Parts: sequence; C-alpha cells; structure tokens
Amino acid sequence: MTDKSFKKKLKKVNQFKISSNDSIIDVINSLKDTGFNAKRLAVACQIYKEMINDKGCVKFFGQAGALVPAGMQGIIHDFIKEGFVDILVTTGASLTHDVAETLGYHHLQGDINVNELDDIKLYGKEMNRIYDVFLPNKVYEGIEDFISELEIPNNNMPVSSFLKFLGEQLPDNSNSILKICAEKEVPIFCPAFTDSGLALQLGFHHQDLNLNHFKDMLEMVNLAWEAKRAGVIIVGGGVPKNFIFQSIQFSPNSASYAIQITMDRPEPGGLSGATLQEAKSWGKIHENAKYSTVISDATIALPLIFWYLKKSKNNL
Amino acid sequence: MTDKSFKKKLKKVNQFKISSNDSIIDVINSLKDTGFNAKRLAVACQIYKEMINDKGCVKFFGQAGALVPAGMQGIIHDFIKEGFVDILVTTGASLTHDVAETLGYHHLQGDINVNELDDIKLYGKEMNRIYDVFLPNKVYEGIEDFISELEIPNNNMPVSSFLKFLGEQLPDNSNSILKICAEKEVPIFCPAFTDSGLALQLGFHHQDLNLNHFKDMLEMVNLAWEAKRAGVIIVGGGVPKNFIFQSIQFSPNSASYAIQITMDRPEPGGLSGATLQEAKSWGKIHENAKYSTVISDATIALPLIFWYLKKSKNNL
Amino acid sequence: MTDKSFKKKLKKVNQFKISSNDSIIDVINSLKDTGFNAKRLAVACQIYKEMINDKGCVKFFGQAGALVPAGMQGIIHDFIKEGFVDILVTTGASLTHDVAETLGYHHLQGDINVNELDDIKLYGKEMNRIYDVFLPNKVYEGIEDFISELEIPNNNMPVSSFLKFLGEQLPDNSNSILKICAEKEVPIFCPAFTDSGLALQLGFHHQDLNLNHFKDMLEMVNLAWEAKRAGVIIVGGGVPKNFIFQSIQFSPNSASYAIQITMDRPEPGGLSGATLQEAKSWGKIHENAKYSTVISDATIALPLIFWYLKKSKNNL
Amino acid sequence: MTDKSFKKKLKKVNQFKISSNDSIIDVINSLKDTGFNAKRLAVACQIYKEMINDKGCVKFFGQAGALVPAGMQGIIHDFIKEGFVDILVTTGASLTHDVAETLGYHHLQGDINVNELDDIKLYGKEMNRIYDVFLPNKVYEGIEDFISELEIPNNNMPVSSFLKFLGEQLPDNSNSILKICAEKEVPIFCPAFTDSGLALQLGFHHQDLNLNHFKDMLEMVNLAWEAKRAGVIIVGGGVPKNFIFQSIQFSPNSASYAIQITMDRPEPGGLSGATLQEAKSWGKIHENAKYSTVISDATIALPLIFWYLKKSKNNL
Repeated sequence: MTDKSFKKKLKKVNQFKISSNDSIIDVINSLKDTGFNAKRLAVACQIYKEMINDKGCVKFFGQAGALVPAGMQGIIHDFIKEGFVDILVTTGASLTHDVAETLGYHHLQGDINVNELDDIKLYGKEMNRIYDVFLPNKVYEGIEDFISELEIPNNNMPVSSFLKFLGEQLPDNSNSILKICAEKEVPIFCPAFTDSGLALQLGFHHQDLNLNHFKDMLEMVNLAWEAKRAGVIIVGGGVPKNFIFQSIQFSPNSASYAIQITMDRPEPGGLSGATLQEAKSWGKIHENAKYSTVISDATIALPLIFWYLKKSKNNL
Repeated sequence: MTDKSFKKKLKKVNQFKISSNDSIIDVINSLKDTGFNAKRLAVACQIYKEMINDKGCVKFFGQAGALVPAGMQGIIHDFIKEGFVDILVTTGASLTHDVAETLGYHHLQGDINVNELDDIKLYGKEMNRIYDVFLPNKVYEGIEDFISELEIPNNNMPVSSFLKFLGEQLPDNSNSILKICAEKEVPIFCPAFTDSGLALQLGFHHQDLNLNHFKDMLEMVNLAWEAKRAGVIIVGGGVPKNFIFQSIQFSPNSASYAIQITMDRPEPGGLSGATLQEAKSWGKIHENAKYSTVISDATIALPLIFWYLKKSKNNL
Repeated sequence: MTDKSFKKKLKKVNQFKISSNDSIIDVINSLKDTGFNAKRLAVACQIYKEMINDKGCVKFFGQAGALVPAGMQGIIHDFIKEGFVDILVTTGASLTHDVAETLGYHHLQGDINVNELDDIKLYGKEMNRIYDVFLPNKVYEGIEDFISELEIPNNNMPVSSFLKFLGEQLPDNSNSILKICAEKEVPIFCPAFTDSGLALQLGFHHQDLNLNHFKDMLEMVNLAWEAKRAGVIIVGGGVPKNFIFQSIQFSPNSASYAIQITMDRPEPGGLSGATLQEAKSWGKIHENAKYSTVISDATIALPLIFWYLKKSKNNL
Repeated sequence: MTDKSFKKKLKKVNQFKISSNDSIIDVINSLKDTGFNAKRLAVACQIYKEMINDKGCVKFFGQAGALVPAGMQGIIHDFIKEGFVDILVTTGASLTHDVAETLGYHHLQGDINVNELDDIKLYGKEMNRIYDVFLPNKVYEGIEDFISELEIPNNNMPVSSFLKFLGEQLPDNSNSILKICAEKEVPIFCPAFTDSGLALQLGFHHQDLNLNHFKDMLEMVNLAWEAKRAGVIIVGGGVPKNFIFQSIQFSPNSASYAIQITMDRPEPGGLSGATLQEAKSWGKIHENAKYSTVISDATIALPLIFWYLKKSKNNL
C-alpha cells in the first residue's frame, strides 16, 4: 500500500452538531464517525440492528451486574419482548432481583454518600446497600414465602427448565424478565445459580432438589452448534460472558456479530475485561465478524441502545 | 430518626420504559430515579439546567482530554454559543486541535486495532495516533505557517488575552472554540499553555514572547471572587479542574453547583479522579451545593447533556 | 469532639525510606503509615497476619481471574500449603488451568502487542490468547484424555467432593492447587463449575454426571455457620466473592476480618467492585471487623502479601 | 514463519515460588517471566536499570499525582539522590506539598471512610482532604510566610531557574525534592506552575513576577535535542508526560527507553492513559525502544522499583 492510498482511504472525523429535533437515530448516526467510546457505542448500535435484521442469526444475550436494582428491569424486559434476545444467560443475583420486583417488592433510591457508620446503621435498619440502591431485608422474606410454596415438578430438571417453570408461576408483571422469557420461550441459562439468594431459599425449602447443571451446559452447546449464525451481546462480563463463548467455541460457526458493554479493563487478564479481538484467537468470534466494545456503565449505554433499536424498528 | 421515618422517606427505584416517541428530556427524566451512573447523568443534566437558569451563577467549564480529535469540537462550540459556558479553562492540546480544525485541517478516523508494527508504520507515514484517531503531521506545518505570520501586539500579555487575539485572527468557522469564545467574550484560561504544539510554534517563531501566566492566575481568582454564585463543570479533570477550584477556594463563595465527567478513579489520590464530595473539605464546593459526578467517557456523556440542555431551552 | 482533640489524634503521614537491606516486613511496615493503595496493601498484610494468628478464625479464600496462566499457581499453592487458606472458592477456568499445568502442560509467554490480524493468525496456530499469555489448544486434548478415563465413583456427589476426588487422581506436582487442597483437606467450592472447559470435557465423556450444586451451597452455609470467627480474602471478585459472602450473611457471626484485591470500580454497582464497607449493611462483615481493599492487579499484590506472610511466619 | 518455529520460540510462563530469604531482585526476576502487570512491573524494573547503566542516556522523570501527601517524598528524593533522575518534570501541587513538608509541616493520616457530612466537618476544622490524607489549612499560612519573605533576584527568569532558587532557600531536609534537585543540579520543569497554591502565594506577594514559561519550554527542547539517548519515566501522566514527550518529539533521537506507571485507561483517549506503543506513531519513542507500562497505583509500584534499583546498585 502506498502512502497516498493509505491516506486517501482515511475518512475525516465528523465534527457533528445536535439540534433540538434530532432523534436518537440522528444522534447515533452522528457519533458513528467520531472517536473513542462515542464511536464504539454508535457502532454497537448498528451491529445490534444488523443482528436483528439477519434472520439466520441467533442472539445470545449475557447479562451480569445489578441492573435490576438500578432500574433497568423494564428495559431488559423490553429487549426480550421486542425480539432482540433469543437466549438469555444471566446471574442468580439478577434473577433474585427480578423475582423480588415481580412479586411487588421494590428496590429503593439510596445514596452513594455513605460511610462505615451509615452502613452499620443500615444493617440495623435491615436495609442492604448496592452502591446507591437499598434493598430491604423483608424482600427476602417475601421471596421465601413464594419459594417455599412452589411445587417443583422434577428435582433433577436443568436449571433452565426450572427457570421457565418459575416464570410461569410468577404473577403477571409488565417488567418481569422471568415472565417475558417464559412467555416468549426465550431460554434462560444461569450457570452459577446456586450463587444467589433465590437458590439459597430453594435449597432451604426443597432439600431434594438437584437441578442438573450439566444438562444446561450441553443444551447450550447444542444451541450454539445449531445456530446458522451467532450474535453475542455481553453486558457486564462475568460468568454469562464465558458461558456463551465456551459454547460457541465448540461450534462449527464462531460468532458473526459481537458487542460488549463493560467497565472492566483488559490489562489484569480477567475475562470480564478481555477484548473481543482476543476472542478471535479462541475461535469464539469469527475472523470476519463485526464487533464493538463500549467502555461504559451499562445503565447509560443499554437504554440508549434500546432506544435506538426500538426507534429503528418503528421507522420500518 | 426512627426506623419508620427512615424507610418512609426512601423512594422506589424507577423501573422505567422507553418508547419510540420519547424525547431526550423524557429519557433523562426517567433515569433520574434509577441508580448508578444513569442516575448521576440525569442529575448532572438537571443541575446544569439549574445553573443556566440561575442568572447570578457564573459557569466555569474545565475541559481536558482529546475531545476535538474525537469529533466533539462542534458540541463544545455550541455549549459556548448557547450561553452554557461563562469561563473556559482548557489544555494547550485542545487549543492546538481547535486551531488545526479551524484552519481547515482534519483529524482522521483511525482504528484501535493497532499494534507496535502498525504504530511504526504510522510514524513512517507521518500520521500521529490518538487512540482511534489519526492526526497527520502536515497539520502542524499548517499551524506553523499561521503562527509564524501572527503579529502579536504585546509579548507580555496574559495567556487569556493572547487566546482572545488568536480567536480574532482565525478564519470564520462554525465549530471553532477559540472563535466563538472571542465572539461571545468568553475568556479562555490555559495554565499549561506551554505544554502544547501551539506554544512550541509560538516559541520557535516569536522568541521574545513571555506571556504572563501569573496575571491569568490572579484574574481567574478575581473572576471567582466576583461571582455571586459559582457553577463548575469539569470534563476530564487535569489542570483545568484544579485551576478552577483553586480560584474558587480563595473566594468568599464556594461553588453552589458542580458536575464532573471523568473515567479516572478516586483511590490512587490524583485530583482528576477525586470526588466532588472531597472538594467540600477544601471549601471549593459549598456544603449545600448540588453536585454529581458521572463516571463516563465524555464523548458519550457530553453530547447527551448538550442535547438535554438544548431541548430544554427550546421547550421554554 | 473539640477541634483540638480531633487534630491531636491524627498521626503524621510517614515519609519513609527504603534501604538495600530492608526486608519485605520492613517495607510493608513503612507503607502502613502512608496513604492511598500503599497503605491499603500494608493494612491488608497485617490483617491477613492477624487472621492466621487467630486460631478460632476460618479463612475463606475466594479467587477469580486468570491467575494460573499469569504464573501465580505456585503462589496460590503455597498459600494453601502454609495453612493460609481454610476454604477455597474458585472458578471453573482456574481449575481448568490448574489441571493443565498439573498434567505437565504449560501456558506460554505471549505479548500484549497483538492486533486483530495477529489474533486471527493465533487462531490458525491453535493458540488461545489470555491478554499476554498463550494457551495452546493441544492442552485441551491432554485434559480430555485425562478426564475421559476418570472413573467417577458417584454421579451425584457435590462439586466439592468431585474436586477432592480430582485432586487425588492428578499426578504429583509441587504447584498444583487441586493436589495440595486434596492433601491438606482444604475444601474447594466452585459454584459456576459448568462454566469451564473442564466441565465441558466431563459433560461430553460422562453423560450421567449430575454433580449436586445445591449440596455444595448448603455445605458452605454450614461451614460459615460453624466458624467461630470468619476471615475473608477476596482476590478478583466474581462468583467466589458473592458465594462466600452469601454464606456468611446467613450465619450468626459476620466476618471479623476481610481483605480484597481488585481492579474493578464500585460506581457501576457490580459486586466485584463493591466496597467492603458496603458489605456491612448486609451483615456480611461485622461492624467491628478489620478490613482493607487494595486496588491492584492481583499479580502484583498477591506475591507481596505471600512474601510478607511467609517471612513473618519464619521470623517467629 | 512456520507454525513450528512460532511455537518453538514461545517461552513457558514461570510458575515461580517465593521463599523467606528471597531479595527484591529475586522476586522481580521471578515475575519477569509471568504475565499481566506482574510481568510489566518486572520489565519496567529491568528497563530502568538499563537506563541507569547506559551512560549516554538522559533520564527524564515526569511525576503527577499527590505522591508527597501519600508519603512518597523520601522515595522521590532518593531517586534523585541516587542519580536515577536527570531531569524532573512535575506539577505545582507536588512542589507545594514538597515545600510544606520541607518547612516542617506534615500531611496527616486520614481515612477514606468519609461522607459528605464528614467533609463538611473537615472544612469546619480547616482540614483539606486528599483521598485518605488530610492537609491542615495552617500549612498554607506557613508557606505564605516563607514565600512572602523571598527576595526573588529576577522577575522574568524561567520557572526552572526560580525552582532552583527556591530549593536553595529552603532549609536542609533529608526528604526535600526541591532541595536535592538544587544540590544535585537536576533541573525541575513545571509547565503548569500557576496551577498551584505555591504560585498563588507568589502571585499575591510578588505582583511583578512574570516567570518566563516559554524559556522553560525551549530549554526543555534543547535538553531533549542534546541527549545522546533519552530515557523516559512517567509516573501518573498529566502535563509532565506530555511536556517530556513534546520535547523529545522534536529531537533527532526519540526515546530509547520508556516506562510508565498509571491507573488511567487508554480507551477514553486522554494522554495520561495513552499506551507507550501509541507514542511510536508520533516519533516520541523509537521503533526499537524498550518500554513497559505498569497499571498500578504509583504508591505501590514506585517503592518497589526504587528498592530493586537500590539493591541492584549496591550489589555491583
């Protein structure tokens, strides 16, 4: 490549403007030709839209982190309702929070401005802190009542089957993740299920329960194997990220699309912060895949991506 | 405070939805009652709006980081044009980038996917990399031509006076930060001006120049002293953050409003990542001030804040 | 409290020196009276030493992240060998890496200076990248041979029992974590076991396996319940952090000591980055507990802590 | 390159051990063949040792961040005393802190566990907080007395000349950075000098002062120009990092050695977090240079590096 051709192909950075009447689509389109994480966010929006429009693409959505306490339950619910998620992989904590809200309990607006003495006082008030959100202990009592009365049809079913059953048992709720997944037949996987308040209540009240985690693992490999094309959305890393990628790694087709939203860094070597580029060496992401990592708190990026996708869908 | 009263005053986290027709005002209002950085962003938007509506408030805007290369020049220009900035404190690099774009040169869209060999090749092609943006060396030649021909009226004027002169000399440009500041008579302070390509060219071609940095420092203290109320907007930390706060610290009125957008962490003790709460111990921020720190890449948060403020202004 | 008494009780920051003959104990003692993460590291060393000297304290050690690939297998092994760990909670990936090294395979020194094309080439060479470490695919073949030949005595035993069995089957190795845990009867818990290459091989070759994750969960609660005092060491957060704390939360005695090493931030609300102070509101950490969070890559902090503990033990 | 030759040249990751009698040299040598930031720290130690042993290398040491408040004054002093620094570039805040300690005032050990109410109380007690360190207001009064009585020989000298003069005026002190630089004739540059409490006091009491920042800038370019080889040590980024590199960029010889210690991230595009690799595209670092970035709080990494260098020097 000559110097001239190299320079010719480089596009200018877009010194964009925003006007009052801009839509989210206008703004994201403007950001696409900028730099740093604004560009990455815009590219992530575009890739997600392509995934949705690609009828042969199975969309694996991995979610870790306390998004339900931070008010993102309805947004995640709507990702699923709108058909933007085909398979959900999540954490036991997220499911616990989802059950709590679905049963009518609430997370409360707290404050980051808390020191040790305040945390000790919160303990006295039976109020658990998740950064700037509070979760009252009594919520766990409500969950316990619900869990203790469940009549579980099969002690050895996979976790994903149990979660479908659980979604069916929960009352109607326009934000519930478990409920909408059950309705839309979106499977939920939760490899670290026993690492949760929900599982603790199950274990205390249903002593013969031995949900089959290995069947989930193999079923997930099958789903990845059968996907004509795979698209991956990683929110927050953790076990869901690795579980999705280990399944795809063993499949003939590595992921064609991948986006990830994270605040973790790559340099200390943990998987949550690992770049998507690195995933190519493992055969988790295809060499020609489209991918974008957005370094952002998911509570900012996720609503924006949803807004863009929803508006794009309605503009069709 | 009794347990009952404590719990009573806590509000529920808002499990919000986004619909296609939502405006940026709707979305920010929804985020206000959530958690984590979504909430902080929404609160920052509100505080900034209050600052603008408070006629007695002088708005000090500190900006560090390569925002112009990342396509944010027009947005910063419009913050100033719309009257959202009364005093700008910035870095020599930002001014250099602004001069480059104002003279008609451009930053180019590069790629993060660069390794050592690529960087060596970029050097061979005279293409300087700023993360995923490229700046061709020839831009510096253009700046040099412009700088060498300046007829500087006074070798000992303050940097801020020189920057006003510079803005007047630059060609018309609808994105230029220096230009709009000169037009709107928004003073620009740049305490580390000699830490820039712009100053190097000045030093090479105007050997008798000795811009008076101490006069800037004292003038800034005067501006803080005279402000009925102070509002502070910190984008990216660095010298601009400290320079604004050291001026306010010596004033009778500490800041009534403060927002900051940063990706730096507080734990290693550097000022860029320091919390705004800590600034209260110094008397930089008033004990009753409204404040919010948003942990976000400024390229994401800044356009959103502008969009919200612009839309709010037009809704009046 | 009067102003005078407040100021009187504050100690001076120690402007320390280091001389050639200083030992790690001298250096850590010097850092104890400084600030930022140097102080936190020194305090963490001291707290860990106290835990070890407290005969009634059960030490729960949670480890996430790719520490074995980064050369920390021998150090973790020696933490266990020296009696610094009573209960280990870890990830499936760490166990997979440990099995690989114990079987005589090796992680290789790679390079961070890798771009997309290099990652695609690495894929072609069957070389998986973990930041700046490479893991050849053939390692998995070796693991597969070993796993396929296992004669598992009970398909429904808890994961922790299986991991003890696994440690017994592995060849002698002076670095092996599984081996030393089996020998020293330190139980290993791995709540997200099926999220690993090791479990995938097990699932492929032992189709009737249904390790009982719920029994592990309840056993862990029992261990926390029975601990006279609990000490917690969290390296890297993740599932191990939550699993340890959810067990302690339901116990009569919350943790008396806690240290954590992490690079994650608290602001986005995920548990890995959550402060230890926050854990007090949950009753996970006792109001009078000693605790310290060190913001550091574990590959730097962990060897230093071990060095300090080992030297302290030998000085007795 | 064939697959075989590729794999052959890869070295094994070192699964090292630490024994009680190990020296810091043993430990760093062990870490050299590991991964992540342990490896980077060990490589940084080695590169720094090479710089010192290379008699033709001029060592530019850039320091930002509140290291003196965190107890690192004596360590930085000893870097200079031992001949590990040829040119120092620092911040006005660091110089202010150094003057305070040199005059016999002290930073105090505070606490991170502070909330808004505590910060308001600290303000009432005239106690300024820097993360977990407190600086009493009365220190500024002491600095003011000292500054107001200075008889400055030349109002228009460069900042670096003034700082030499200042070092000569200060009382003897075994930790003082300004003092040891004056004694060892190590020039100190401070491009953002007026962004400091020290400069404010100077400005208030010496109204005709107009220190010539442009002469510093040009002198720094000369020093870089005349260096046979350049070595760069960046602690904390900020203005010192850019100032060193902008000087080297215009020199015939770009840096042969470079190490940086930072907690900032590269993705948001600011210079503090920028990789050293990126500096190659600018011609700031030579294509064949040895370089290493350590992602670590400087309060942990800097004492370790000093310990290693000091012990290596004494072992000769």
